[in-house]
Amino acid sequence: MSNRKYMELAIELAEKARGFTNPNPLVGAVIVKEDRIIGRGYHEKYGQLHAERNALASCTEDPKGAVMYVTLEPCCHYGKTPPCTEAIIAGGLSKVFIGSRDPNPLVSGKGVKMLQNAGIEVTTDFMKEECDALNPVFFHFIIHQTPYVVMKYAMTMDGKIATVTGASKWITGEKARENVHRDRHHYAAIMAGKGTIIKDDPLLTCRMNGGKHPIRIICDSQLTIPITAKVVTTTAEAATIIATSCRDKDRQQPYIDQGCRILEIPLSADNHLSLPHLMKDLAADGIDSILLEGGGALNWSALEAGIVNKVQTYIAPKIFGGETAKTPVAGVGVALPSQAYQLVNPKFTAMGDDILIESEVLPCSQE
Amino acid sequence: MSNRKYMELAIELAEKARGFTNPNPLVGAVIVKEDRIIGRGYHEKYGQLHAERNALASCTEDPKGAVMYVTLEPCCHYGKTPPCTEAIIAGGLSKVFIGSRDPNPLVSGKGVKMLQNAGIEVTTDFMKEECDALNPVFFHFIIHQTPYVVMKYAMTMDGKIATVTGASKWITGEKARENVHRDRHHYAAIMAGKGTIIKDDPLLTCRMNGGKHPIRIICDSQLTIPITAKVVTTTAEAATIIATSCRDKDRQQPYIDQGCRILEIPLSADNHLSLPHLMKDLAADGIDSILLEGGGALNWSALEAGIVNKVQTYIAPKIFGGETAKTPVAGVGVALPSQAYQLVNPKFTAMGDDILIESEVLPCSQE
Repeated sequence: MSNRKYMELAIELAEKARGFTNPNPLVGAVIVKEDRIIGRGYHEKYGQLHAERNALASCTEDPKGAVMYVTLEPCCHYGKTPPCTEAIIAGGLSKVFIGSRDPNPLVSGKGVKMLQNAGIEVTTDFMKEECDALNPVFFHFIIHQTPYVVMKYAMTMDGKIATVTGASKWITGEKARENVHRDRHHYAAIMAGKGTIIKDDPLLTCRMNGGKHPIRIICDSQLTIPITAKVVTTTAEAATIIATSCRDKDRQQPYIDQGCRILEIPLSADNHLSLPHLMKDLAADGIDSILLEGGGALNWSALEAGIVNKVQTYIAPKIFGGETAKTPVAGVGVALPSQAYQLVNPKFTAMGDDILIESEVLPCSQE
Repeated sequence: MSNRKYMELAIELAEKARGFTNPNPLVGAVIVKEDRIIGRGYHEKYGQLHAERNALASCTEDPKGAVMYVTLEPCCHYGKTPPCTEAIIAGGLSKVFIGSRDPNPLVSGKGVKMLQNAGIEVTTDFMKEECDALNPVFFHFIIHQTPYVVMKYAMTMDGKIATVTGASKWITGEKARENVHRDRHHYAAIMAGKGTIIKDDPLLTCRMNGGKHPIRIICDSQLTIPITAKVVTTTAEAATIIATSCRDKDRQQPYIDQGCRILEIPLSADNHLSLPHLMKDLAADGIDSILLEGGGALNWSALEAGIVNKVQTYIAPKIFGGETAKTPVAGVGVALPSQAYQLVNPKFTAMGDDILIESEVLPCSQE
C-alpha cells in the first residue's frame, strides 16, 4: 500500500469520532512496519487518549523502526494527557508522516522539532488539504477563540421558510431532516431565538441513533420565553443556556429552578443581545461550534454581528408564494446589492428530493 | 462509426438552429453509405426546408441504398414544404433510424408506415430520450396547443430578488446574465408585468450576438404603462404585445401609434388578466414558448393559473436580508406546505459563481 492509502485510512479512523471530541480535533493514526499495518487508533472522545497513543497501544508487534501516519501534528505539551511526542519517541518509530500542522501558533512546529531532535524522520504537510478538511471547527476555534457558527435554514425554491399562515411542517423531506439531526450531533451547541421557541416550542435535541444532544442556547434578551417551553422543562435530557440581558434574579430563578443556566449578556447599540459578547462567553465554556437554527431576525443579527462562518441552505423543490411569507434572513437587510454578504466555496449535496448548499461566509472587510 | 454516433451527430446538427425554428421543432438528419457520411442537414429556420430534404440535397454521392438517421419522424403531409417521406422514398434509401415520434396524434406513425410501405426498413424510438430532449417546447405546444412557459428569476441565497430599497442590479454575475439572453433568443416571446416596466423600464430584448429578439408581451390589465416606456418606443426593433382588459380605443391608440399590438383579454374572477385566455390567443398566433420574467405578483398569478411548465431559478452566492425585501413568488400564496406547487426533475448548472436550478412544474391535480 502507498503512503497515501495509509494516510487515507488514518483520516477514515479520525472521522469515526465526529461529534464526540469537541473542542478537541478529530485525529487518526496508523502504524506500519514493512508494509504491514501493526497499529491503528483515533482520538475517540474528549478527555481520553490521543490517536497516537491509541495506535501505539494497539500495536500487534514492537513498533520499533515502524512508520506512523498521523492526520495532525503530535502534541508536545502536557494537557489532559501527556505529550504524544514522548510516546512516539519511546516507541522507537523511525519515520512520521504528518497531515495538518497544529493551528496554535504557540506550539505549531514544536512537535515536529521534538521528533526530529530524537532522530525521527518527519514528512510534514502530507495530504494537508484532506487532513485540514477534518477539522474546520477546531482550526477556527483555536485561531479565533470563538465558536464556529453554522447558520442553517430550509427554504422553498422561492425562498420561503413558512407559508403565509406561518406553517412550516415540513418544507424538506426526511433525508434532509435526518441530516440536520446528524449535524446537531456534530456541533457542540444549537442556538435559536425567542421567536422560534414561542412559535414552534421545539426540543432542539438530536434524534439520531447514538447521537449526543447539543447544548441548547436560547437568545431571549427580555427573558420572556414560557417557563413551560420544552427547552426549559427538559434540561435533565439536554443542557439549556438562556442568553439574556435581564439581570433580575427573581425573574431568572424559575428558569434556574428548571435546570437552565442563565448567561447575562449586554445589549448592543441596536438593542439586541451582543452576539460577539455571547460567543466569547460560550468559547470560554469550551463550546467550539454552534448550529444556528434561528428565524429571520436572529439570522440577520448573527450575520450583521459577523459571527457566522458557514451557511447551510436546504432547498426544497416546491413553491409557496405569498407576499408576506417569511424568508430565512430578515431584519434590516442591506440597501444595495454591492453590500450583500458574500458566500464562497459552495458545496452541493443531493438530499433525497432536496438539495443542500453549504458555503462559507466571506468575512466583511470593515471588521 | 456506430448507429449511436450517427444519431448523436444528427442531434448536434438539430441543436444548431435553436431559437430559429419556432414553432417548428429542431430536427437533424445524417445519411450514411457503407460507413461513409454522404449527407447531413438540419431544419435551419421556420418556413424553410426540413432536415431530411437538406440532408438529401447535400449528398456527395447517390443516396440509393443508404441509411438515414433522423431525430424526428419524417412528415408525410403537405405543410409549408412537401412531405419528407416522399423525398426519402424517391432517394432510394434502404433504411431509416428515427428518434422521436411525431407528437401529433393525428399523424404519429403515419410517416413510418409510409416508408415501410415503400419497402424501407425503419427502426423507431432509436435514442428516443435524447431526441425528445431536443424539443420539449414543440412537444408541449403540439399536444396542449398552448405556449410552453418558463418562469425565470434570479434570487439571493436567502430568497430575495431585490434589496429592501428595491435595488436589484445585479444579483447574478455575467455568465448567468448571458445565459438569460441566450434564452431570450431560444424562446419565441418574453412576458413581464406592468410593475416591472414601471420600476425598471427594461428593453427585454436579446443582447446575444446573432440572437433574435423575443416578442415582448406586457401584462397591463388597466393599460397604465407609460407611453414613454422602452418596450413601447422600440417596436421598430422588437415587437410588443400589450395584454389588457381595457377596451377603450382612445386609450389604446397611443400605444398602437407607437407600433404596439393590443390584445384584449377578459379579467378572471380575481380581477387579474385571464392568463389561460391570453395563452390561447398567443398560441393561435404561433407563439410556442414564453420566458416569463415577471415580478412576484405576476409569477404567482401564472403559477396559480396553471400556465407555468418550467422554473429557472438562478441563485447568487450572497445574502441581502431584509424583512420587506421582495421574493420571486408573492401574491396570496398557499396556506399549507402540503398545498405547495411541486417541482420535479431538477437540473443543476454552475454559471460562474451562480447556480441555475431548472425544474418542471408538476401539474396540479385539480386542473
